[in-house]
Amino acid sequence: MVTNKIAAGFSKLTKEEKLKLVSRNVRKPEEFIMEMKSFWHKEKQKIFDDISENTISNYWLPFGIAPNFLINNNIYHVPMVIEESSVVAAASGSAKFWFSRGGFNSRVISTKKTGKVHFIWEGKFNNLIRYMDKLKPAFREKTRHITRNMEKRGGGITDFEFVDMTHEIDNYYQLNVSFETVDSMGANFINSCLEEIALVLRDFFCSCQDFELPERNCSIIMAILSNYTPDCLVESWVECEIGQFNKMDKNLTAHDFIWKFENAVQIANADPSRGATHNKGIFNGIDAVAIATGNDFRAIEANGHTYACMNGKYKSLTEFKFDKDIFRYSLKIPLVMGTVGGLTSLHPLARRSLELLGNPDARKLMQIAASVGLANNFSAVKSLVTKGIQFGHMKMHLLNILNYHQVSENERQTAIEHFKTHKISFNSVSEYINRLRS
Amino acid sequence: MVTNKIAAGFSKLTKEEKLKLVSRNVRKPEEFIMEMKSFWHKEKQKIFDDISENTISNYWLPFGIAPNFLINNNIYHVPMVIEESSVVAAASGSAKFWFSRGGFNSRVISTKKTGKVHFIWEGKFNNLIRYMDKLKPAFREKTRHITRNMEKRGGGITDFEFVDMTHEIDNYYQLNVSFETVDSMGANFINSCLEEIALVLRDFFCSCQDFELPERNCSIIMAILSNYTPDCLVESWVECEIGQFNKMDKNLTAHDFIWKFENAVQIANADPSRGATHNKGIFNGIDAVAIATGNDFRAIEANGHTYACMNGKYKSLTEFKFDKDIFRYSLKIPLVMGTVGGLTSLHPLARRSLELLGNPDARKLMQIAASVGLANNFSAVKSLVTKGIQFGHMKMHLLNILNYHQVSENERQTAIEHFKTHKISFNSVSEYINRLRS
Repeated sequence: MVTNKIAAGFSKLTKEEKLKLVSRNVRKPEEFIMEMKSFWHKEKQKIFDDISENTISNYWLPFGIAPNFLINNNIYHVPMVIEESSVVAAASGSAKFWFSRGGFNSRVISTKKTGKVHFIWEGKFNNLIRYMDKLKPAFREKTRHITRNMEKRGGGITDFEFVDMTHEIDNYYQLNVSFETVDSMGANFINSCLEEIALVLRDFFCSCQDFELPERNCSIIMAILSNYTPDCLVESWVECEIGQFNKMDKNLTAHDFIWKFENAVQIANADPSRGATHNKGIFNGIDAVAIATGNDFRAIEANGHTYACMNGKYKSLTEFKFDKDIFRYSLKIPLVMGTVGGLTSLHPLARRSLELLGNPDARKLMQIAASVGLANNFSAVKSLVTKGIQFGHMKMHLLNILNYHQVSENERQTAIEHFKTHKISFNSVSEYINRLRS
Repeated sequence: MVTNKIAAGFSKLTKEEKLKLVSRNVRKPEEFIMEMKSFWHKEKQKIFDDISENTISNYWLPFGIAPNFLINNNIYHVPMVIEESSVVAAASGSAKFWFSRGGFNSRVISTKKTGKVHFIWEGKFNNLIRYMDKLKPAFREKTRHITRNMEKRGGGITDFEFVDMTHEIDNYYQLNVSFETVDSMGANFINSCLEEIALVLRDFFCSCQDFELPERNCSIIMAILSNYTPDCLVESWVECEIGQFNKMDKNLTAHDFIWKFENAVQIANADPSRGATHNKGIFNGIDAVAIATGNDFRAIEANGHTYACMNGKYKSLTEFKFDKDIFRYSLKIPLVMGTVGGLTSLHPLARRSLELLGNPDARKLMQIAASVGLANNFSAVKSLVTKGIQFGHMKMHLLNILNYHQVSENERQTAIEHFKTHKISFNSVSEYINRLRS
């Protein structure tokens, strides 16, 4: 049990001092410090230290490859970063299955990002909207120093709109601003623009001669991008003839398989607690690509899950169709990803991930990530309705359990052989290792 | 642009061969291989390779510390792993503010986890539930080999219940199984149990003499844990007297601040697109603790976001109260986290993170993570309603921009000094560096 002392002025300490300070709370401080340092980079540590604050080391996640993803007729060997075993294997298995069946198709439906100035104003909506034409040039002028470069790249602010929200909160209005951020995720760009726009709006209300009190008073509550972007949308899908599922499972005909698959997807729509788990499998894949490429997976998660419940009930993000013997399975999801700016070129491994993908633009990265998400979900549902999820998962997790028992190379090989035909669980493996050693 | 060749038998290749194969698609293969190898660990690489599949290297994320979190009267220096700048600084700032105001309070409300066997059965619900008493002993017996160890630790299967879902899908029923997994996240345990239970159920329908066709037919669609666990719930909160906010912002009285803060939280409830962003700030903190401690953040995200929309509209996970001059701000969130099993003891850095936290049990880790989530959200809302989010964020992001421009130590110090009093944006920093160099 730790009873830490307060660490005053922590952020001002050097990294060595920080390490030493926190090590006061562990059993073997010197060993702790040595181990944490073993995860530092010889040349590039400064970059990692500056990415976040109060850093004492780096956290390592396995960097894997899901090879042979055929997406819109291009082959990608997709970098995936994830701590959960079997996710990369599942994506790879799915990629392999679909490779010979036309691969993944993907299209970007829209790329609109939005942010809002939220304000409380004691006036009428009709009195507000008639000033839009006057305000727009001011908004544009005051954000020019930020939008200039983005416009050169084909992006910028695309629209302004006042929204009446007084049915929700008294005197509550929004100024919705739409953005095109091209290949950048755009969070800093959008937020910087919105903060300038908020100032223009505040000054306008103070100084507008047409207004009397109380209409002169406007309280800007906040100005901030929205992580929910239903109009920044991508769709990936796979399709093939029913006959392709004949050998999916030795106990199931192709029709039986499709019937069970369809039921599994319907259930994800019928029961939110299954929907959440169903969609979690999608994010396993998408987040792994997001982390590998330096993108913000919390933004991606918030976006997708909010989209999943937009009609009042949390549902599956995938859609099943079976028509004229053609199986079609698709994923439609809002995705905000960047391939320039942020960490994408700063993080040495994010840069390498993008290089492995052929330095795609943001639209292509959206398509890749969505396809991997669909692949992971397809693989999970396929396993669930056939041999169960644990069979494949535990096969992959076996190595972790063996490492936990610090097996020798000999024990390792013997165990791998044994568990090719025996059920894997933490207990069964532990017992087997104990038997082996006694 | 890459046109990859298909990489047949990829998973069978050695790590060196995999690296070589994917390097065919980059501009400077040798440099690529060398850089990827520079991220390998000298002694512990095998552990990382076995965590996931097809690994070629490790992906590094900064490992930071948010010091001085006072939670239920204990001080924690919390390990956080996140790629987004300013998240650790925001958590630290919040921890500091609340340290002298009573700190964070937290309580675990419940720890029930669930999983379901989903099945299609052409029979009546009343004919089903009367067999529960007969089935329970069989469920328990057939899972004994899995539950034995869990029961020793105080957990196990706590309940079985049939659920009629025929209002959603014809002939669709669920067997809901409840679990207590004590200090483990429990995913493998729950899924392994459910798959055994599904077999018992299937055999029961086939062999039960009371049933005639079609009641003998039961199709098990799937058996799987639920990532949505509304009864595995934790609450964290802070509270203080209004006077404590007097110096929060030089332009706002304490009352003004609280009024704006309240509006910001109400807006997150009124507009799902703000709700998603509001909650995203919570997950910034929680996920950073989850990754640091080897927990599954996709499961955490799916859980929390599904909970946020359970009443038909996506809402804030935090709650604001102001009563008798007392400000109270709380977060209630379902959280599934483990401190044993999974990667927690296997991943060297996850183990170290838990050590830094005093090797907490799962309940304590839930409390810590929820408090950090609340801290990050509090910090974000506080910034939004005062000086704006960009001020602090860009201050932290400045170092990244400077690294992007590969500044010298001299340029770095000059720039940091300059931007103490100037607005930071990617453009303004780039221009400043160019001026400095010309």
